[in-house]
Amino acid sequence: MKARAGIVGFRGYSGAELVRILSGHPQAQPVLLEHRSDVEHRAQPIDSKAVSALPCTAEAVRNHRLAVVFLATPADVSMELAPALLATGTKVIDLSGAYRLRTQENYSRWYKEDHKSADLLAEAVYGLPEFYRAAIPQARLISNPGCYPTAANLAIKPLLERGLVDRAHGIVCDAKSGVSGAGRKPTLKTHFCEAAENVTAYSILNHRHVPEVLLTSGLEEAEFSFTAQLIPIDRGILETIYFRAVQGTTADRILDAYRSRYAGEPFVRLYKHGQIPDLKPVQRTNFCDIGFRFDPATGRAVVVAVIDNLVKGAAGQAVQNMNLALGYEETAGLL
Amino acid sequence: MKARAGIVGFRGYSGAELVRILSGHPQAQPVLLEHRSDVEHRAQPIDSKAVSALPCTAEAVRNHRLAVVFLATPADVSMELAPALLATGTKVIDLSGAYRLRTQENYSRWYKEDHKSADLLAEAVYGLPEFYRAAIPQARLISNPGCYPTAANLAIKPLLERGLVDRAHGIVCDAKSGVSGAGRKPTLKTHFCEAAENVTAYSILNHRHVPEVLLTSGLEEAEFSFTAQLIPIDRGILETIYFRAVQGTTADRILDAYRSRYAGEPFVRLYKHGQIPDLKPVQRTNFCDIGFRFDPATGRAVVVAVIDNLVKGAAGQAVQNMNLALGYEETAGLL
Amino acid sequence: MKARAGIVGFRGYSGAELVRILSGHPQAQPVLLEHRSDVEHRAQPIDSKAVSALPCTAEAVRNHRLAVVFLATPADVSMELAPALLATGTKVIDLSGAYRLRTQENYSRWYKEDHKSADLLAEAVYGLPEFYRAAIPQARLISNPGCYPTAANLAIKPLLERGLVDRAHGIVCDAKSGVSGAGRKPTLKTHFCEAAENVTAYSILNHRHVPEVLLTSGLEEAEFSFTAQLIPIDRGILETIYFRAVQGTTADRILDAYRSRYAGEPFVRLYKHGQIPDLKPVQRTNFCDIGFRFDPATGRAVVVAVIDNLVKGAAGQAVQNMNLALGYEETAGLL
Amino acid sequence: MKARAGIVGFRGYSGAELVRILSGHPQAQPVLLEHRSDVEHRAQPIDSKAVSALPCTAEAVRNHRLAVVFLATPADVSMELAPALLATGTKVIDLSGAYRLRTQENYSRWYKEDHKSADLLAEAVYGLPEFYRAAIPQARLISNPGCYPTAANLAIKPLLERGLVDRAHGIVCDAKSGVSGAGRKPTLKTHFCEAAENVTAYSILNHRHVPEVLLTSGLEEAEFSFTAQLIPIDRGILETIYFRAVQGTTADRILDAYRSRYAGEPFVRLYKHGQIPDLKPVQRTNFCDIGFRFDPATGRAVVVAVIDNLVKGAAGQAVQNMNLALGYEETAGLL
Repeated sequence: MKARAGIVGFRGYSGAELVRILSGHPQAQPVLLEHRSDVEHRAQPIDSKAVSALPCTAEAVRNHRLAVVFLATPADVSMELAPALLATGTKVIDLSGAYRLRTQENYSRWYKEDHKSADLLAEAVYGLPEFYRAAIPQARLISNPGCYPTAANLAIKPLLERGLVDRAHGIVCDAKSGVSGAGRKPTLKTHFCEAAENVTAYSILNHRHVPEVLLTSGLEEAEFSFTAQLIPIDRGILETIYFRAVQGTTADRILDAYRSRYAGEPFVRLYKHGQIPDLKPVQRTNFCDIGFRFDPATGRAVVVAVIDNLVKGAAGQAVQNMNLALGYEETAGLL
Repeated sequence: MKARAGIVGFRGYSGAELVRILSGHPQAQPVLLEHRSDVEHRAQPIDSKAVSALPCTAEAVRNHRLAVVFLATPADVSMELAPALLATGTKVIDLSGAYRLRTQENYSRWYKEDHKSADLLAEAVYGLPEFYRAAIPQARLISNPGCYPTAANLAIKPLLERGLVDRAHGIVCDAKSGVSGAGRKPTLKTHFCEAAENVTAYSILNHRHVPEVLLTSGLEEAEFSFTAQLIPIDRGILETIYFRAVQGTTADRILDAYRSRYAGEPFVRLYKHGQIPDLKPVQRTNFCDIGFRFDPATGRAVVVAVIDNLVKGAAGQAVQNMNLALGYEETAGLL
Repeated sequence: MKARAGIVGFRGYSGAELVRILSGHPQAQPVLLEHRSDVEHRAQPIDSKAVSALPCTAEAVRNHRLAVVFLATPADVSMELAPALLATGTKVIDLSGAYRLRTQENYSRWYKEDHKSADLLAEAVYGLPEFYRAAIPQARLISNPGCYPTAANLAIKPLLERGLVDRAHGIVCDAKSGVSGAGRKPTLKTHFCEAAENVTAYSILNHRHVPEVLLTSGLEEAEFSFTAQLIPIDRGILETIYFRAVQGTTADRILDAYRSRYAGEPFVRLYKHGQIPDLKPVQRTNFCDIGFRFDPATGRAVVVAVIDNLVKGAAGQAVQNMNLALGYEETAGLL
Repeated sequence: MKARAGIVGFRGYSGAELVRILSGHPQAQPVLLEHRSDVEHRAQPIDSKAVSALPCTAEAVRNHRLAVVFLATPADVSMELAPALLATGTKVIDLSGAYRLRTQENYSRWYKEDHKSADLLAEAVYGLPEFYRAAIPQARLISNPGCYPTAANLAIKPLLERGLVDRAHGIVCDAKSGVSGAGRKPTLKTHFCEAAENVTAYSILNHRHVPEVLLTSGLEEAEFSFTAQLIPIDRGILETIYFRAVQGTTADRILDAYRSRYAGEPFVRLYKHGQIPDLKPVQRTNFCDIGFRFDPATGRAVVVAVIDNLVKGAAGQAVQNMNLALGYEETAGLL
């Protein structure tokens, strides 16, 4: 008997990816939860399995005994839905930014709006398993990390922990993302003729994902410069990260910092010094691949981290969190 | 002293292309006319030439002595604006489908709405210069052809005139268009993630552009099958046209039909038998390139015609019409 | 104990797709067979499962007891390898065009070269399971269909069998394919800057895949006009098929012809009259989706069939054939 | 009587762009010079102006009195051709990297080969008009800047001159380029299926264009980190540049540094603080657009500079240099 996993926002890109992953999961099955939505259906083959959705109510969650509900919704919808859903006893995994920060003040600063259920901020667990695995099983509310911070923290934190980064010089993270990261709601920015043959940098130095990197990595805002850029691909994020290493750093020590930290990690893969991953090996997977190049003469280092923004950057990591929360094999449905 | 040419809808793709072409025109200059509009501005460099637009009123057209007004607007807007603009004495070149058909009945059938200024239908001249050049100079209202019919009629009509097509077998026209043909208003269909890595066939056997082909070519509806398909490119149309040739046809006779018909035409270019154009030679130009292949053993023939949907399929042909209407060199601003 | 399935040409696009599908197969596992090859490796993560390939020799096939060998190679390589491999007692599934036609003469006509192992032509079974399922289990040599003919025959044959097509009018098949269909070897045609923002029609009226359609459908060459076009997508084929239906045809009868023929078929999905599939529902799947539109007033019909050229058009169908040949569930590894 | 401008490498992307620009130049006309070449011709319309090319010999240059010869060739070809061409008295504008560095040693270090005409290194003038305008008219040999250094130096140098950059923190330049920057010769990297839906970082920390930035900007190698990345677009470069500003810097001072330096410059356009250009306004133009964002609280600054890699990054700037070298209006043929 498979566990039932509700999905709110199943017509969006992250939600549809959740449906896809959970449809192949050995221990869980997707249950669609209909909330208000402005995105259109697609034509369906005749006799295709009826896409019948339940109403997204506390009653439906109780009656159908949903073990977990995924919120693939905008932050304001998540803030509204989470409290009522949690009251049913289900676990909630929120893919929006609603519960990623720790305080109401910090939320207001970066999201430019008041929080509607701020009492949950302290309770929510930040679902980056590689760093917070222990806290996830007992969490009622798991806040799934943003796509950019997932790659950034996986690439930066082992080096900071090992003290290899000259923090006074600061760290630069230049991120390129597929257009699916901007959501399925049509806007001029996501119009094919505006996005194709183009690169669009946005939210420079004040992107909402920055505070997530600071909280996890321990960096100060002044030490971290981040730019997000939309490029004409559907899915994938490549982040190019620049820093100055401390005296005595070598390529081997950098690689060793990663290998020690990620030994046994199922979803982080490392490349030899000088080998740089591109997006192809991670698309449609839950992997984060990391490569780097270090110049011993000057101490300059460049790390490249790649993920699929809809998988390790959203739905895949959410299922990884579900696996931990419900006591399944962490990789179930993901390899 | 350059003639002033008003442009309504200058933020859309066809309108912006009109601005671009007219900015380099030796005898005319663009004047922006602001109508209600839901598309956004782009960021502009400092000190960039002020994009100041006049209100789109009969008064402004009179006061600024606009010699011509281009309507790069949806059909319902064109139907509303044209009568008032014509009353000022200016010429109107309409890029929508509002005035391309000859009767109210035919318009209602294909556009699924009543015509708001049907009295102008009989007067409007269909601005396909290669076939209606003589009528254009004296026209008050020029109806600029649709993008698909422009390529289709240029490819088909010389062969029909010469009697080379076995009409009983019918003609098939399979059209592939860039996404700019769907306009700048964001929709799910034009979302990058839906349009990229995809092909979308639409309005099969009942596309609004079909009656334009019938009117110009003289084909019956039963003789002409047309499918339009969006492919993930910004601009360009390639039409693949299939027919059975009458007994006695040869590749030379087909080529000769084209060469005779288009001798001296500045914007139609022909390829040798078996050489097939792609989109690169016509993008950002007002050319229509035509190639074909004929199989004498079976009489099967395939013609490929390519244009830039925003130039020969819209703004470029509109300027070609303006040149004829105002007595300029037909190619002015277009080569 | 899983059966071993050798793959020659595993670095090409079809070969890599075979590796991907077989890696998730419940009863078979991929074994890489190294042949001469000019395509490059990609960088690999540290500790990634060693990609060790056996030499592609009869001895290796025997020693490692390969139950089947897939040839994802050009036709001239397949013609050379198949006889020696068959001599080992293994089954061979060839993805090239080498064994798709029935006679040496027909092969020479369409492939412009002599056949090197023509004695196998009569023996090879054409692996289109929807029409030749019964013959596949006992075949030693299975010739996997071409990508274009797979979609074309699935779309056309049920209508021909039911007598709904007015064959005197001929059938037109206009195909649009992703660039992966042209193979991984770099050429000017597959250069990003030539293929992007472009459409390229090629081999008009003499494409090598035409005789496969004729053999399976029973159409005469004069009755079938085919054009293949490369469009700027990675993978996927959409075919737009035009014909005139015989008197008395209705949309219901067309749909019924498909439904009767494909009842129980696991990989063919049908759409209601007027609903037209695009590529998204079939990419990375072994499905062929079919939709159509019929105009009763004129008898004109348009059918749209979509597949993933690397899956149902190549590697997926090859695994479907392997499943039949080795006695597994037909859908194993494919759903 | 127009001056004759020879073009070697006219079938490559930069060379074809030179042909396009010079065909519309009021005072010069292109003359094609045939050298060994492996790139293919395209099909041409019937009666298209004969593309007849002269042999690329000193004799042809003399006989046809070429005022200038553009070398749109690889560095090793340019090193070979330049001396003989200069001997004819013509001016040479080289678009390769052959003459961009000042010493044989530096060339060998970055280009990993010996220089074949090192005596010309000292004489060659670096053709970045915004900084070396005075030296260009009297130069015999003009070395056209690389695409990446053009954008980087235009973005960085005014700030360094004004002392606004805290050089101890270093400058990071993250560049994204269209695939045309990799040339027209087909490789696996430029194959559509490898480049589409992908980002490829290459030559990290040791790209050949780095020393050009150092020479022009005066930065030390340790102060400048550069990564080039291919993204799936045809043409355009966007560079995101990160630095820490010195105490007392304000957004106004940054903007003022640019405005003072570029007052009167025809091809540099500036944006207001916080407005960031994308590629659309510069594609197919010779403009470099620059925008930035500054955070006064932390001193972090991000500058975005965009150009068309084939125009301001290659052929357009080469024509700008020709205009200066032959005494024409600097913008002739370029606006």
